[in-house]
Amino acid sequence: MLHRKILLPEDQMPTQWLNLIPYLKKPPAPYLDPMTGQPVSPEQMGVIFPRALLEQEMSTEPWIDIPEPVLDFLSLWRPSPLMRAYNLEKALGTPAKIYYKNESLSPAGSHKPNTAVAQAYYNKMEGVTRMTTETGAGQWGSALALACNHFGLECMIYMVRVSYEQKPYRKSMMHVWGAEVVPSPSPRTQAGRAILEKDPDCPGSLGIAISEAVEDAALREDTKYGLGSVLNHVLLHQTVIGLEAKKQFEMIGGYPDIVIGCVGGGSNFAGTAFPFCVDKSHGRDVRIIAVEPTACPTMTKGQLTYDFGDTAKMTPLIRMHTLGHDFIPPSIHAGGLRYHGVAPLISCAIEEGLIEAQAVGQTAVFEAGIQFARSEGSVPAPEAAHAIRAVIDEALKAKEEGKEKTIFFNYCGHGHFDMASYDRYFAGGLEDYEYPAEKVAESLAHLPKVGG
Amino acid sequence: MLHRKILLPEDQMPTQWLNLIPYLKKPPAPYLDPMTGQPVSPEQMGVIFPRALLEQEMSTEPWIDIPEPVLDFLSLWRPSPLMRAYNLEKALGTPAKIYYKNESLSPAGSHKPNTAVAQAYYNKMEGVTRMTTETGAGQWGSALALACNHFGLECMIYMVRVSYEQKPYRKSMMHVWGAEVVPSPSPRTQAGRAILEKDPDCPGSLGIAISEAVEDAALREDTKYGLGSVLNHVLLHQTVIGLEAKKQFEMIGGYPDIVIGCVGGGSNFAGTAFPFCVDKSHGRDVRIIAVEPTACPTMTKGQLTYDFGDTAKMTPLIRMHTLGHDFIPPSIHAGGLRYHGVAPLISCAIEEGLIEAQAVGQTAVFEAGIQFARSEGSVPAPEAAHAIRAVIDEALKAKEEGKEKTIFFNYCGHGHFDMASYDRYFAGGLEDYEYPAEKVAESLAHLPKVGG
Repeated sequence: MLHRKILLPEDQMPTQWLNLIPYLKKPPAPYLDPMTGQPVSPEQMGVIFPRALLEQEMSTEPWIDIPEPVLDFLSLWRPSPLMRAYNLEKALGTPAKIYYKNESLSPAGSHKPNTAVAQAYYNKMEGVTRMTTETGAGQWGSALALACNHFGLECMIYMVRVSYEQKPYRKSMMHVWGAEVVPSPSPRTQAGRAILEKDPDCPGSLGIAISEAVEDAALREDTKYGLGSVLNHVLLHQTVIGLEAKKQFEMIGGYPDIVIGCVGGGSNFAGTAFPFCVDKSHGRDVRIIAVEPTACPTMTKGQLTYDFGDTAKMTPLIRMHTLGHDFIPPSIHAGGLRYHGVAPLISCAIEEGLIEAQAVGQTAVFEAGIQFARSEGSVPAPEAAHAIRAVIDEALKAKEEGKEKTIFFNYCGHGHFDMASYDRYFAGGLEDYEYPAEKVAESLAHLPKVGG
Repeated sequence: MLHRKILLPEDQMPTQWLNLIPYLKKPPAPYLDPMTGQPVSPEQMGVIFPRALLEQEMSTEPWIDIPEPVLDFLSLWRPSPLMRAYNLEKALGTPAKIYYKNESLSPAGSHKPNTAVAQAYYNKMEGVTRMTTETGAGQWGSALALACNHFGLECMIYMVRVSYEQKPYRKSMMHVWGAEVVPSPSPRTQAGRAILEKDPDCPGSLGIAISEAVEDAALREDTKYGLGSVLNHVLLHQTVIGLEAKKQFEMIGGYPDIVIGCVGGGSNFAGTAFPFCVDKSHGRDVRIIAVEPTACPTMTKGQLTYDFGDTAKMTPLIRMHTLGHDFIPPSIHAGGLRYHGVAPLISCAIEEGLIEAQAVGQTAVFEAGIQFARSEGSVPAPEAAHAIRAVIDEALKAKEEGKEKTIFFNYCGHGHFDMASYDRYFAGGLEDYEYPAEKVAESLAHLPKVGG
């Protein structure tokens, strides 16, 4: 029988997160206050984030301890298995060995709880009793609901109205875990009310939902805000993925030639790739590929410069690859990959040559997702299928070249709440959006003037 | 850190299924031809089932080898973890130790693929190129689609029309795995056409869908039929669950005092419980509890007698607990537990005192499901929540009595495709159907006259 699963025992779970910052040649640029052009102070950020997370955000320590209660709750599904994709290899007829971390096995169905649990814990420790966040299709919202429920925090989720209405089942999941979910824009915040006055039928956007969640957190003493990607501390919490994988590769005496992940804000990719980036920064020969949609080509076509993190210009300025904060990507089915920017640490790693970026088209992505489901069983989320597309392309290249490459990727989530997208694919209704050059040019023209 | 997961290494997967029949005091009664009252011949059954499965159906061997290709595909997700439900124990404040097998981690999200894979394999080996089946909410249909796809068989699924229209996402999953799915009644079969002529808007039923799938298989040389529960060989294939669990309990030096599973047709329960029933038949002191809905109280209120397996009276007569083949249970949200009968081997085990039966109400079931989700993370299918209800009740009893019982149950599936039912619960729209005495009396009056 084939040995498909490399299982790390619970007592070998990583007990520290790995911080990429001390391994970069150049430290990441500070977040800037858009009014003054000066670095934002911890006090400013402290209005919406707890102290411990801000310390992690700025830390230059290579290793940061994972608190015991966080490890304990993560152990409900972690360590996740490292899987050898024998069936996919066979289907492709490739000499490449394909491995993947199965992050779809968490209760919320993705990697997102890895940071949600840590964030809820630190908030709890600092006396916060309520957290807010925004969610689009609902992966992040459900992860934070799960985590807040565990630590006994109230959870308030502003869910983009169009998703709230059209994809109700992630919302139901948040209810099961005790969260309150409102469609955004909502009449609960000034930001929401202002928009509803102008347009009572506004379908909402992630940008608007962020504004509402941040406003809610900023105005209440008992409440702070949680973000599901982009920031350093969020990426840090995800490094358990890559750290576990490295231990699992050690168990079989292997090491990947290529590491692949999909990128929206960048948290699942960073969590998978950064431990390998550290090895690469020490001279290890490994290709690390970040995959994004051609419809939202932040890393492959964006500018590396200071921009707002959100559409409503409420965040500090962040130096990152960006398509412009008012770039609105076509509504592809990988809702988690429609962010105009990318985590600043990923931008740093691209700049230093640790990471290369690729963009893939929607139809090819769904073809890859279906090929995966028909060989490895599990039906991937459209986001995860972006990584799978790149994996299949590399495996076919290895076949052409007759090389026995080891390819490793992160299977960041299942598609159980994305089946309507597969229906659309089978009905021939998916469009392939190429680089929206004019839209990008227009939004890049609106970049803020500060910094650089 | 708590040690939550008992993981059986892949190379210790059970390589044989365990057959309960040789451990029963009295062999199960034969299936009867309703026309003649005589046992049905293998030739009659062979029209719709392959020889190998019929041999298993009749076998009195205690152990039956699992073919290597079946083991190989099962190893994509098996052995499933045995989990210690520390968080649920803590939430209940019980001294009881609660363990569960997590069968929700299969690609189809339940235990169903354990038999689907075996059935597809044996059909393939006998030159069958196409399988048919019926499905209600879609758990079984998606499992057979997954398995047929793996072995390169066509798969034709007759899906109850009302589910086809109202719960489209299981259908989408079947499409991803390459199956053809039609709403039943369909114009493709004589059975379907006859019903559509009388009632073009007929919402369908599992009984009608079975008739269509069986007719389709009976009329085509290349096609056979697969059933997801009830029959001996189906239960046999599920015994990997209990066999793995026994090995996992050995690893920690434990053994359950109480084994619990939910029962529709009975396959997940039997797969979990039968290996423990064998121990009990040898004198081991263990309580084994089969849990059913009060709305469909087959084991607790039905008669143990010969009845048809389906509404349309196309099957042989089966000796089992039954509410009458034309009993139509209220439309509770655990679609998988609405069968009028139960697997005949479970009836035998009840008769011999190996198993006790309990019925639980719908509201209490959803309360238990939500308590599980809020402590252990994963959101259960309503079917699985029936088992959880009984587990919580036993754990609370252990608390009252101050006894450190070990309770083991099968977590047979997740609820990712059942979120509308949770919505209904939160909206206060669930009804508690008690024993529908008059309806049962009426359907029991229609029992066939043959046999006994």
